[in-house]
Amino acid sequence: MSSVSSDSRTSLPPLDVDLPPVEEVVRLPAGFRAGAVAAGIKASGGLDLGILATTNGPASVAGTFTTSRLPAAPVRLSRAHLEAAAGRTVAILSTSGCANAGTGEVGERDQAELGDLLAASLGVERELTLAVSTGLIGSRLPVERLRDPVTRLATSGLTASDAAFGTLAEQLMTTDTRPKAASVRLELPGPDARPRAVIVAGIAKGVGMIHPNMATMLAFIATDATAEPGTLGTALSRAVERTWNQLTVDGDMSTNDTVFLLASGASGAMPIEADDAGFNRLADAVEAVARSLARQQAADGEGATTLLTCGVSGARDDAEARAVARSVVGSSLVKAAAHGRDPNWGRILAAVGTATVDGQPVPIDERRLVIGLCGVTVFAGEPVPFDRDALARRLARPEVEIRVDLGAGGATGEAWGCDLTEAYVAENSAYST
Amino acid sequence: MSSVSSDSRTSLPPLDVDLPPVEEVVRLPAGFRAGAVAAGIKASGGLDLGILATTNGPASVAGTFTTSRLPAAPVRLSRAHLEAAAGRTVAILSTSGCANAGTGEVGERDQAELGDLLAASLGVERELTLAVSTGLIGSRLPVERLRDPVTRLATSGLTASDAAFGTLAEQLMTTDTRPKAASVRLELPGPDARPRAVIVAGIAKGVGMIHPNMATMLAFIATDATAEPGTLGTALSRAVERTWNQLTVDGDMSTNDTVFLLASGASGAMPIEADDAGFNRLADAVEAVARSLARQQAADGEGATTLLTCGVSGARDDAEARAVARSVVGSSLVKAAAHGRDPNWGRILAAVGTATVDGQPVPIDERRLVIGLCGVTVFAGEPVPFDRDALARRLARPEVEIRVDLGAGGATGEAWGCDLTEAYVAENSAYST
Repeated sequence: MSSVSSDSRTSLPPLDVDLPPVEEVVRLPAGFRAGAVAAGIKASGGLDLGILATTNGPASVAGTFTTSRLPAAPVRLSRAHLEAAAGRTVAILSTSGCANAGTGEVGERDQAELGDLLAASLGVERELTLAVSTGLIGSRLPVERLRDPVTRLATSGLTASDAAFGTLAEQLMTTDTRPKAASVRLELPGPDARPRAVIVAGIAKGVGMIHPNMATMLAFIATDATAEPGTLGTALSRAVERTWNQLTVDGDMSTNDTVFLLASGASGAMPIEADDAGFNRLADAVEAVARSLARQQAADGEGATTLLTCGVSGARDDAEARAVARSVVGSSLVKAAAHGRDPNWGRILAAVGTATVDGQPVPIDERRLVIGLCGVTVFAGEPVPFDRDALARRLARPEVEIRVDLGAGGATGEAWGCDLTEAYVAENSAYST
Repeated sequence: MSSVSSDSRTSLPPLDVDLPPVEEVVRLPAGFRAGAVAAGIKASGGLDLGILATTNGPASVAGTFTTSRLPAAPVRLSRAHLEAAAGRTVAILSTSGCANAGTGEVGERDQAELGDLLAASLGVERELTLAVSTGLIGSRLPVERLRDPVTRLATSGLTASDAAFGTLAEQLMTTDTRPKAASVRLELPGPDARPRAVIVAGIAKGVGMIHPNMATMLAFIATDATAEPGTLGTALSRAVERTWNQLTVDGDMSTNDTVFLLASGASGAMPIEADDAGFNRLADAVEAVARSLARQQAADGEGATTLLTCGVSGARDDAEARAVARSVVGSSLVKAAAHGRDPNWGRILAAVGTATVDGQPVPIDERRLVIGLCGVTVFAGEPVPFDRDALARRLARPEVEIRVDLGAGGATGEAWGCDLTEAYVAENSAYST
């Protein structure tokens, strides 16, 4: 126990996250247009058909998809089109209320028919269209009912406005209680060496079936920066690894998870290359948007009453830091304790002890381990006495912050989740019927 | 889809489990004695201090422990003593209501002191004692209060009776609503070639923080067969891999999980060796007891209203079959749907698609996949129409049976869990306070 400094016993500082500031507002970068309508997929009559399109020819695009071995039809279509079009796209079709997953070959034909309709309406090759869908697994898209709305929306329903992008954010929602949006402004050099104002902005939906390695979650991040698909892919992978793969709501992973990152180039900024000085600035902006969306998704987890965050420091490497953080926010018992605003730190310790990387346990030295809960150190090689009532009051805040220091190195990582509530169970025990 | 036979579309037969019959009753094999008292660890005043001991010198013993990197003090003590005594033991001390985990070096000293007391009371070396503990993490054992009860129980409170073993099963309980016991009778050859009646019998506790690779679960399996520790270890590993590692209640793994398999040799049966014809009979009996205890633990999961089982066939190998089964019963959304008696098979499909072995996804061919729910085939390469109300009625039975056939090979596997209920959340959001 002598290896734990007296400093860390009394205070564990918040993790230092070095990313640009984010505004939780909807902004549509230049070069894009969007729109959504209610086409009758959702029984509620809500917005359920949306399109994100470019204003002027193909944009560069990179995508990240569910790792499920039973991906939905829209995921299969998007993967094929992304490859065929070498990372260029003109429009993404978004349907909500029906996942079009577990629908076999007939589901694939349904999805292809809608994609062809979209391509024809916009006068482009089918490979320049992509698709996402979210909702109930195992039911077919009502294609018959969707034909006219797709054509009308594509030909006359799209607008290059922040509000239109906001409408698309609403269309994405299933059990979400609110739309999610985040935006970062930055400057990148133009061809004349004068800076150009660039926006990186995203929208996303959660909120059940969310777990590391993607989730039932969809997100579109758009920017008017200029970059090739490969460069976008590098930035997106880095962001997803640090943000969405660290997000867990209920440990389930969906058939439909998709994130697209699109760049229109409409800002007039110089092309960003993966080895540029500008690359890190763009990638950081993408990560900042992704991190904000992931936090918003966690906070709006099904039935959630609090955001649950875990920051891990003192790890030997980033992968171990992130694994420990994920293990903590993914623990049903930690989540239930957070719901009860119960300072039951023993469950955090148990979750720390079971973290794995590629199936191998992360070595933890109990004597060097420090655990903090809402700014109060509760364990430092051994239990640290604390004022239980005072801590319970801090736990009542809208964010329950867990800090863990492993005392083994300099690497850090974060993860986000939410409390486990009776409302989650109630919501998910009667969904399809 | 043509690859799925019409047979499997209409009926998916139950998995064939080839194990000896089990009685869910408490039996104490010859050569053992047991007892338990209320020593004031549990606030409820319930039984919280127990001992399982031999009647006549050391028994052979094998142990399996939590893979947590922050194991509790009793786990550290047991591992050390097992090794020092080369798999022989005279007594196991069991405490409940306090895990003695996350208690640092002081917790280790507490555990050692009680072990020394037990050894002294029985007049044996300390290495011939083992320990288990279960309960709240992070609080110390009230050693002062336990000294007299340990001595008294060890010297005059142990009985060689089924009832005494039953008392120990009650002592193990924390949030369990009922004790768990299972017993198998078999015959093994004696030295005169005449068969000897042998009993393999176990007791166990659940019921939260239960997940593959052990759980907050304790189990003792005792037999009066004759076997060396190495042979017991082989039988125990095989059983644990197929049973307890396939049990999940809430995805959490504890600091304290322990299973001991002890053999007294008091039946007079010939020693079993790992390459004997008799070995499989003993190992099957151990597995049958473990499987029964695991099912009882799942059915008594915290807040559970139904046992949830998944039998997987048609896998390329056992590991993949078991991984798919675990993924299904471990899915929060499947568990919540089971609670709502909701035939939402899309969630089963989603869970099948995310199974991994050593971090690698299990390949699944959607066209060959068949899913059955309580005897009704709901998916066979594509959705299969079914009578929703009739299936909902079947789902109301005390066991929700999920069957999956992967159509890829001949291997099978099972996993057990329970539904996720509001009561689980309520129970676990106010535990320590």
